[in-house]
Amino acid sequence: MSRIAPAELEQFIEQLFLDAEVSADVASVVSRVLVEGDLLGHHTHGVKLAQGYLKDLRAGHAKGNAESLRIIRQTPAARLYDADYLLGPYCVEQALDFTTQAARTFGIGVATIRRSHHIACLAAYLQRYTEQNLIPLVLTSDPAVASVAPHGGLDPVYTPNPLGIGIPTGEKPILIDVSMSTITNGLVNKTHQAGGQLEHAALIGPDGQPTRDTAAYFGTPPGAILPLGSLEFGHKGFALGTMVEALTAGLGGFGRKDGVKQWGAAVTVLTFDPAFFGGVDEFKAEMDHFVGACLDSRPREPKRPVRMPGHAGIDRRAKAFEQGLELPEDVLAALRGAASEAGCEYPF
Amino acid sequence: MSRIAPAELEQFIEQLFLDAEVSADVASVVSRVLVEGDLLGHHTHGVKLAQGYLKDLRAGHAKGNAESLRIIRQTPAARLYDADYLLGPYCVEQALDFTTQAARTFGIGVATIRRSHHIACLAAYLQRYTEQNLIPLVLTSDPAVASVAPHGGLDPVYTPNPLGIGIPTGEKPILIDVSMSTITNGLVNKTHQAGGQLEHAALIGPDGQPTRDTAAYFGTPPGAILPLGSLEFGHKGFALGTMVEALTAGLGGFGRKDGVKQWGAAVTVLTFDPAFFGGVDEFKAEMDHFVGACLDSRPREPKRPVRMPGHAGIDRRAKAFEQGLELPEDVLAALRGAASEAGCEYPF
Repeated sequence: MSRIAPAELEQFIEQLFLDAEVSADVASVVSRVLVEGDLLGHHTHGVKLAQGYLKDLRAGHAKGNAESLRIIRQTPAARLYDADYLLGPYCVEQALDFTTQAARTFGIGVATIRRSHHIACLAAYLQRYTEQNLIPLVLTSDPAVASVAPHGGLDPVYTPNPLGIGIPTGEKPILIDVSMSTITNGLVNKTHQAGGQLEHAALIGPDGQPTRDTAAYFGTPPGAILPLGSLEFGHKGFALGTMVEALTAGLGGFGRKDGVKQWGAAVTVLTFDPAFFGGVDEFKAEMDHFVGACLDSRPREPKRPVRMPGHAGIDRRAKAFEQGLELPEDVLAALRGAASEAGCEYPF
Repeated sequence: MSRIAPAELEQFIEQLFLDAEVSADVASVVSRVLVEGDLLGHHTHGVKLAQGYLKDLRAGHAKGNAESLRIIRQTPAARLYDADYLLGPYCVEQALDFTTQAARTFGIGVATIRRSHHIACLAAYLQRYTEQNLIPLVLTSDPAVASVAPHGGLDPVYTPNPLGIGIPTGEKPILIDVSMSTITNGLVNKTHQAGGQLEHAALIGPDGQPTRDTAAYFGTPPGAILPLGSLEFGHKGFALGTMVEALTAGLGGFGRKDGVKQWGAAVTVLTFDPAFFGGVDEFKAEMDHFVGACLDSRPREPKRPVRMPGHAGIDRRAKAFEQGLELPEDVLAALRGAASEAGCEYPF
């Protein structure tokens, strides 16, 4: 396992995108967001994705020019964008910059992006805004993919439909990035390549039984990912997945009904400014109290104390800046593949 | 089991509140929202609550005068209210009426209520707004109660922190009302009175083991409700509960840190108007497509087809208007108790 300096990794990724004729502003944001995903430990949603993004750029299934992102409708607090499959991280950051500005004026801002390309790791967007004492919220679904079954059903109908939210505190921010299903598509794929046994029975087979075996997912007829809550409480995960579907593809008015086949994303982002509610100091004091109470809870396993969402990632990030970033072999292989396909030298 | 006409039940509840010197506008909303909870089948969060609300009114722990609800801070799209423990349903509906007006102008509106009294059934608020082609979202936590353990912990720290969202479609709306924990406080209490065995192992005992036995919850040291996702995926339910905590008590700047002991709620409501995004027709078409795909999914059990969130409740509601409302014995007992404590006749 080699250690790579984050800045060098970002430069390498950025150059790959520049070489693919991605405009400088887009290449800069996309490479920063992808590296940030790895820094926080989300290796299925970090620089590994660059290879697929570059393939889609070459095939014309992803756009690299910032001008692809157009505002379709707007008010001072809300915007609808159409992205024409521009690389997602640039779209999301543009949308969050707009909702930030709206939140600074009105307390809240919202933006929906239809026809974005894939948007990578949700947690990777958040710290930029929590550092400004704001609460950014990102929700997404992919209308081209069906992998999660509705509660009580067997057929894959929708996607894990994750949300990410950043919560400022007096110390480390809380960075939430969770899907509304038991597991993500990325974990199913990665596990399938690595032998096919998941840690938990997160899938439902065509026989209606929960299973750890990814072969059930890729069979004919196919299996599906269970909603969060599994068989017992899956009505809740299904409800939350439906909520994300409505607030992304529904709000944008573009999704599964349109027979989408391209890798992409329906996205909605919101920003709340606590200064317009109970105040930033009171917000942080309340959350610090909550974090304290959680961390003080007696642990279920003595050696594994309670951790707040995102704190392990923030620690990992700090360590990577000190010691270099360790990337798993599947990520390194994807980077070598991306370099080779782009006809450029692999520097690490 | 007796059947009661919904209008007569509402009139009875309203009169109980009027007799307790609750102002007419507040009594009207509270009785309507409580009955609506039962109509949708949420009997732990319907008229059964009236007895406790009336007790709190008599003890001065709940307020009944509409003037208790004050606007502390506002922009054209956001408001912070302080409710001084005014009965919650009135506060929530006032807040949703404001966010509706804001959404009609800006596409989005948000309001936070601190020091609300209890707000009953979240699903009960939604249809009033979905009928106007809007998306209402309600989030709440109760700073006075600690019943859910953080993932990996044993001690109860926070509440089930539910959210409700109404999603208009071309036919029946989707009405979501789910907690971020496996089960609610109401179900724990009701099950404990009825023998103490839950359907699923939704609790964690002081020994760190999941259990169906509510005795573990009420023991010394106490057990706790598990986050949605249970041991395997409870980091997701914990993250979602943390999100709701931040957007309610955090945003209002008033909560657990203030040592709250009174039964109440921190509440945030949002309204989205799809007309300012992809349009109402496109929104409904997208959701109708999604609903169709979910309902078409092969069912896991042939006799139990997939159901969308809230649709069983909407059917139940229609039946109650035709045939009268059937209330479980524990609800009827609470009504008789409320009537007796108020010194008025029980009419059913």
